[in-house]
Amino acid sequence: MNYKMMGKFIGLLLMVESIFMLPALIISLCMGEYNSVIGFTVTIVVLWGLGVLLRLLCRKANKSFFAKEGLVCVGLGWLIMSLLGCLPFFLSGVIPNYVDALFEIVSGFTTTGASILEQIEGLPYGILYWRSFSHWLGGMGVLVFLLAIPLGGEGGSGFTMHLLRAESPGPNVGKLVPKMKQTAQILYILYIALTILNVIFLLIGGMPVFDAVCTAFGTAGTGGFGIKGDSIAGYSPYIQNVCTIFMLLFGVNFSCYYLLLLRQVKSVLKDEELRIYLGIILFSILLIVWNLRGYYDTLEETVRHTAFQVASIVTTTGYATTDFDLWPGFSKAILMFLMIIGACAGSTGGGFKCGRALLVVKNMLRSVRQLIRPQRVQVVRMNGQAVDEKVLANTNTYVSAYAIIIVVSFLLISVDGFSITTNLSAVLACFNNIGPGFEAVGPTCNFASYSLFSKLVLIWDMLAGRLEIFPVLILFSRTTWRQR
Amino acid sequence: MNYKMMGKFIGLLLMVESIFMLPALIISLCMGEYNSVIGFTVTIVVLWGLGVLLRLLCRKANKSFFAKEGLVCVGLGWLIMSLLGCLPFFLSGVIPNYVDALFEIVSGFTTTGASILEQIEGLPYGILYWRSFSHWLGGMGVLVFLLAIPLGGEGGSGFTMHLLRAESPGPNVGKLVPKMKQTAQILYILYIALTILNVIFLLIGGMPVFDAVCTAFGTAGTGGFGIKGDSIAGYSPYIQNVCTIFMLLFGVNFSCYYLLLLRQVKSVLKDEELRIYLGIILFSILLIVWNLRGYYDTLEETVRHTAFQVASIVTTTGYATTDFDLWPGFSKAILMFLMIIGACAGSTGGGFKCGRALLVVKNMLRSVRQLIRPQRVQVVRMNGQAVDEKVLANTNTYVSAYAIIIVVSFLLISVDGFSITTNLSAVLACFNNIGPGFEAVGPTCNFASYSLFSKLVLIWDMLAGRLEIFPVLILFSRTTWRQR
Repeated sequence: MNYKMMGKFIGLLLMVESIFMLPALIISLCMGEYNSVIGFTVTIVVLWGLGVLLRLLCRKANKSFFAKEGLVCVGLGWLIMSLLGCLPFFLSGVIPNYVDALFEIVSGFTTTGASILEQIEGLPYGILYWRSFSHWLGGMGVLVFLLAIPLGGEGGSGFTMHLLRAESPGPNVGKLVPKMKQTAQILYILYIALTILNVIFLLIGGMPVFDAVCTAFGTAGTGGFGIKGDSIAGYSPYIQNVCTIFMLLFGVNFSCYYLLLLRQVKSVLKDEELRIYLGIILFSILLIVWNLRGYYDTLEETVRHTAFQVASIVTTTGYATTDFDLWPGFSKAILMFLMIIGACAGSTGGGFKCGRALLVVKNMLRSVRQLIRPQRVQVVRMNGQAVDEKVLANTNTYVSAYAIIIVVSFLLISVDGFSITTNLSAVLACFNNIGPGFEAVGPTCNFASYSLFSKLVLIWDMLAGRLEIFPVLILFSRTTWRQR
Repeated sequence: MNYKMMGKFIGLLLMVESIFMLPALIISLCMGEYNSVIGFTVTIVVLWGLGVLLRLLCRKANKSFFAKEGLVCVGLGWLIMSLLGCLPFFLSGVIPNYVDALFEIVSGFTTTGASILEQIEGLPYGILYWRSFSHWLGGMGVLVFLLAIPLGGEGGSGFTMHLLRAESPGPNVGKLVPKMKQTAQILYILYIALTILNVIFLLIGGMPVFDAVCTAFGTAGTGGFGIKGDSIAGYSPYIQNVCTIFMLLFGVNFSCYYLLLLRQVKSVLKDEELRIYLGIILFSILLIVWNLRGYYDTLEETVRHTAFQVASIVTTTGYATTDFDLWPGFSKAILMFLMIIGACAGSTGGGFKCGRALLVVKNMLRSVRQLIRPQRVQVVRMNGQAVDEKVLANTNTYVSAYAIIIVVSFLLISVDGFSITTNLSAVLACFNNIGPGFEAVGPTCNFASYSLFSKLVLIWDMLAGRLEIFPVLILFSRTTWRQR
């Protein structure tokens, strides 16, 4: 294992994290929130100090870097970033329990948005800002960010490739351009531009600047931490609709936007994953609106709340404008289905991903065809191209791992004695990085009442969900750490 | 497609079904249940007539027979057998709705044991007998039975092989002996012997003969239809324990019993699936007993009820001695886990099967190892032998198909507006051929309140679960029916 190269990179990660924490410190200073100022200052010093130390210790790293090391680096990087990133919550006294603070920041970085805080309004502004900003950072991937800046590429192209692969969601990493470094840059430029556009649209609706920035962070990262107790319910219909649209936009594969910039509109329109994504959304909205007839006063209200909730769940954001836990069973079942499906690969959204689900279905249909005509070679096609058998095999393994993790996590947190629906939806909401579930973890509730053990399980689930299982799983394998 | 061969075989199937219906007719005659007598007589005549007609029409069949035709034959055979087998319920007036009657007999043949009857006690004896006997017939497989009798093998060895493969549960069909026909005979001899043993043990406990025979049918087929409103709760602890032990015995791969007869005790003890099966059972009992402390008066009672319910769920039988829906959340979560896992491959039990679950976990661990050391060829081993990559690929596809069917069925039946737990457990209970679920379909409830549409979905799930998906899925593929 190339420990030096990993150490060097994680050092850079910590230094960059400390820089990203500065705005929160400044906000705390301006608002005179002294406990938060202490929390942020100590954390920034620790992060910077550890980062510089790591880079000094690991100066002489050789450039040989394998896929395994990429995975370990991503898994470890996210873990350390979280273990230290939660310090402001803990040191400021806002979250007096360290595991709770860790839960909150992991929920932030993984863009889950599940919270253990019972009361959000009245929290220090610096803390609220850091909470929301963690979504933005985790959404596109903090390692992808590092690869986009000058220092980050020092490991060579193999290094960049393996890291980007390990952190990016979806069955297949689409290179936008031949060079990975440039790909990372384009992704972040698109990400920043869309976020700014989102802020502007929210400001037009009369949202205060702080609210607009934090809400946009949560939308862009498809996170879901709100700064109000009732999430987005208290804002105007215009602002709710803006959120709906931007949540959906951030759930689209970013390569589509790049293609749009290159004016390749046709190939975007023909993208099978995009079609399925939009199809599922439209169909779900129609079914829920039908199921909810008479539930709200007007059709406008029904459609607005339905579209918002569908967009929020399918993109795994987790904002809410209404308590969907009170909806009838069929609507809730559709939401549960959307919880699993998730957004597009290559977006900031989590979940199983539409593209991967499409591959699974196509592969199953192929198996049926193969049963019927065993002598004929059958190929699975996506966007007209044959899909590599390796990708299909990996996708199938992913399904198994996904199912196993859900079942085991469900069993483990059941010890706390909550209902089946609560536990199952808690696991689905954390593992798919959504946030709210049903019943005791519904949109008006929070995860505070789970035991510390269950919180640790859910923290693991959130990380496994965001990093797509293997970077986190590999940390637990003996083979990984065995010296040859 | 070799329609003639399929017709000939299905003709034989119907004739055999009519013969199997005779005892029920005789019981009805003896008890003076005239409505049932009419129901059975008409059905027997129809079955025999159709069977003879089919065999006459399809006399000149050629022997070429492919895997696809085996699957179609099994799927169609089960469907027709059910469509006609439910006629006694319908014609006798016991179940006035045809879809309900179909639900009941499919639940019987697939050894599910989910019922739409609100009141069981007081039903005609002939009907109760046929209901329980359908479990016994479906447990080991009615087509396997046909292959064991003289006429059934007329299609040649390829025919026998494909049919046995298509009907037998598990990722791999273990041939006990080189000849398929003999394998089928050995299986049925073991099955009959164990059933008789079960009856004897029940009679020793003072159970009436009719009760003992029906209970043994339900146990042997791991079905779960009882003849009392409170299932097995009203019988003595001795009888309950006998049921526990025999349910577990019928959940074991029958090839283990054959090996025991050959005195190959060592290879039975080393069987990985058997070990996992017993391990899961023991571990689940321990955990639930711990979770239930203080719930029952004595430890004996706690252990007895726990062992019974665990055995009943893991073997997918579905008998109950207590209302486990009232148990605490953790115990229910374990039962839900057992619902999915199921019994051993090659047993009469349903579910995902322990052996298949083991393969899935091993394959996932292999993928992790492969990520760490991509250059080394990794093999998945079971009982010391390398597992064929095709079997592994099929197992993975099975996981996908399994997950897709559960999600889609859950969505479809949610239209009825029941709770998430009710719907999810209803799908799991039907698809895994268990019977009772939780809440509105719990052990003291039934499936009567679902709509006709949902019942049809659940009927499909039961068939798909018993036949392991593909024989039922293939009937819906256009490619299957296209002439070349």
